Amino acid sequence: MTSTDPAPLPSEPPTDPLDEAKPDPKAEATAEALAEKLAAGDRRALARGVTLIESTRPDHRRAAAALVRRLHALPRRTLRLGLSGTPGVGKSTFIEAFGLQLAEQGHKLAVLAVDPSSARTGGSILGDKTRMERLSRHPNAFIRPSPSGAALGGVARRTREAILLCEAAGFDLVMVETVGVGQSETMVAEMTDIFLLLMAPAGGDELQGVKRGIMEICDMILVNKADGDLKATAERTRADYASALRLLRGRPQDPNGFPKAAAVSAVSHAGLEAAWTEIAALAEWRRETGVLEARRREQAVAWFRAEVEEALLRRFRRHPAVSELWPRLEKTVASGDTPPQLAAAKALAAFGLGEEER
Amino acid sequence: MTSTDPAPLPSEPPTDPLDEAKPDPKAEATAEALAEKLAAGDRRALARGVTLIESTRPDHRRAAAALVRRLHALPRRTLRLGLSGTPGVGKSTFIEAFGLQLAEQGHKLAVLAVDPSSARTGGSILGDKTRMERLSRHPNAFIRPSPSGAALGGVARRTREAILLCEAAGFDLVMVETVGVGQSETMVAEMTDIFLLLMAPAGGDELQGVKRGIMEICDMILVNKADGDLKATAERTRADYASALRLLRGRPQDPNGFPKAAAVSAVSHAGLEAAWTEIAALAEWRRETGVLEARRREQAVAWFRAEVEEALLRRFRRHPAVSELWPRLEKTVASGDTPPQLAAAKALAAFGLGEEER
Repeated sequence: MTSTDPAPLPSEPPTDPLDEAKPDPKAEATAEALAEKLAAGDRRALARGVTLIESTRPDHRRAAAALVRRLHALPRRTLRLGLSGTPGVGKSTFIEAFGLQLAEQGHKLAVLAVDPSSARTGGSILGDKTRMERLSRHPNAFIRPSPSGAALGGVARRTREAILLCEAAGFDLVMVETVGVGQSETMVAEMTDIFLLLMAPAGGDELQGVKRGIMEICDMILVNKADGDLKATAERTRADYASALRLLRGRPQDPNGFPKAAAVSAVSHAGLEAAWTEIAALAEWRRETGVLEARRREQAVAWFRAEVEEALLRRFRRHPAVSELWPRLEKTVASGDTPPQLAAAKALAAFGLGEEER
Repeated sequence: MTSTDPAPLPSEPPTDPLDEAKPDPKAEATAEALAEKLAAGDRRALARGVTLIESTRPDHRRAAAALVRRLHALPRRTLRLGLSGTPGVGKSTFIEAFGLQLAEQGHKLAVLAVDPSSARTGGSILGDKTRMERLSRHPNAFIRPSPSGAALGGVARRTREAILLCEAAGFDLVMVETVGVGQSETMVAEMTDIFLLLMAPAGGDELQGVKRGIMEICDMILVNKADGDLKATAERTRADYASALRLLRGRPQDPNGFPKAAAVSAVSHAGLEAAWTEIAALAEWRRETGVLEARRREQAVAWFRAEVEEALLRRFRRHPAVSELWPRLEKTVASGDTPPQLAAAKALAAFGLGEEER
């Protein structure tokens, strides 16, 4: 049935339990220096830190891990906002207007973009900074475009770490925005406290176009472009979404009326203050009821699980016997000589995992 | 930093290279009997086979694996169609009308539904069969609703196996349909030869609502409801999508004009024959140029990779030391005492994977 040789015997990688591992002095020194500068609110250190966690170089990865361990569980009171909206909905303009309003009120706002490249084109999202020019120059704001060319899992890890860095640098508001390709909305919702969905004014049919999944994770729908000719349409769209949201069961822990729909205009600034008041009230409620803290705890557990999966697959791929066998297995699967399941069993055997017990 | 004990020492699971593993006589007997009946076109055997691959019982899983190995790489000439469309677009009505047309022409058509439950509601998709009553009673058709309550990965494996079963039972056309929640469209596109997207007639703004990712994986957009009052709107929508598709670079291997947009009506049957002519021509072209075969080869490799990942994670979770340590790690992560990354390193150490070499 197959033309490959028997799988090579498994060779167990050297075991070195983490608890006995020596810390890497260079990584620790880098981490300590950066952590100190972050604590002093040094924005250049923040930018360098984010670059560090985005790097794939092994020494950078060690320093990044040491840094994140240091920043873990800071007692600071922060709010993490998720924001999604398809292209054309005016997301950058909204973030610029909304963000400037918050920065002017004294909040320190960091904006992180999460835009996993489309699977097919590999296209990356262009300079968010240039589209949010005023906000990016504001002393209370920090904008970081999405790292490009990474898989969704890698983007998730780096974004979660970037949030910690921003908070350590004194940013009390971190907004994570995504265009919502594939599962990126879910990913962003899973790393933030409150999730906002920005929509364009549209006819009744458009409602069907909103994925059910995203309606269920969002806390507030903001219908943008509620100005000029589109004002009435935006208001009608808001009412449509409000009805649709009422059909979904609310979360028992939230105050009445959430999830909500509001009409805003990034151009005329109409509704922006009111939207923030609603968001802040929801955040306050969730804080007081302990929901926010409980959610962050769940998110930490989810992060832990994702870390394990990612590391496990990486270690598997790098295992000498696996990496030697892998190209032959792919070839024999591609030629149709070996069924995928059988090839998978061989790869696992090379890693030292025989057939499961019966 | 953490209150957990040191990770327990790794215990290596018994190694039993697959090549030396004895086949399970009972599983082989079940598989042989089913394979014979499938080859004879026995539809009850097909239904039983699909139930078998959906089962999680260990003996069923062994029999299913044995069955799939037998069916692998049948020389039969088949076409696998993917179809996605949001709720309300008229998907069931379309499949019923389109499917009946094909069944009447002598094609044997199997329809498999892929509907990963929404993460939040856990809601399952209701009886497709009842919504495709005439098609489900046609002797040339086989309809199988989506298995419920499974994760995306599990649904993918079972659907890929169900495709093989249907083909073994003599179905030359297999349509895999999905509502398109999360990444299910990508998943379906990755297991089919041609991917169709069913859309509703809508205003120009709606265009923005189509996820860029799905435009890139689809070969043909079918605008449904091109009848009665909506006929003109549907035609306009078709033209809009056609322009949008022209903006995407075509696939160099495809004939001119693809990806295409067409207007159809599941109610009046307008455009259904023409759509099939286009689809069949594209399939023929891809067959003659070898693109279809090459794509199936790539898909087999992707399936192999997915099998490996799924099995690796399952084995990890079932490892005695890991499953013992896991609840404590989740607890200490949830309490904030241990950073997720550190906990992940401990879990890997319990599995026998120490820190990576420097």
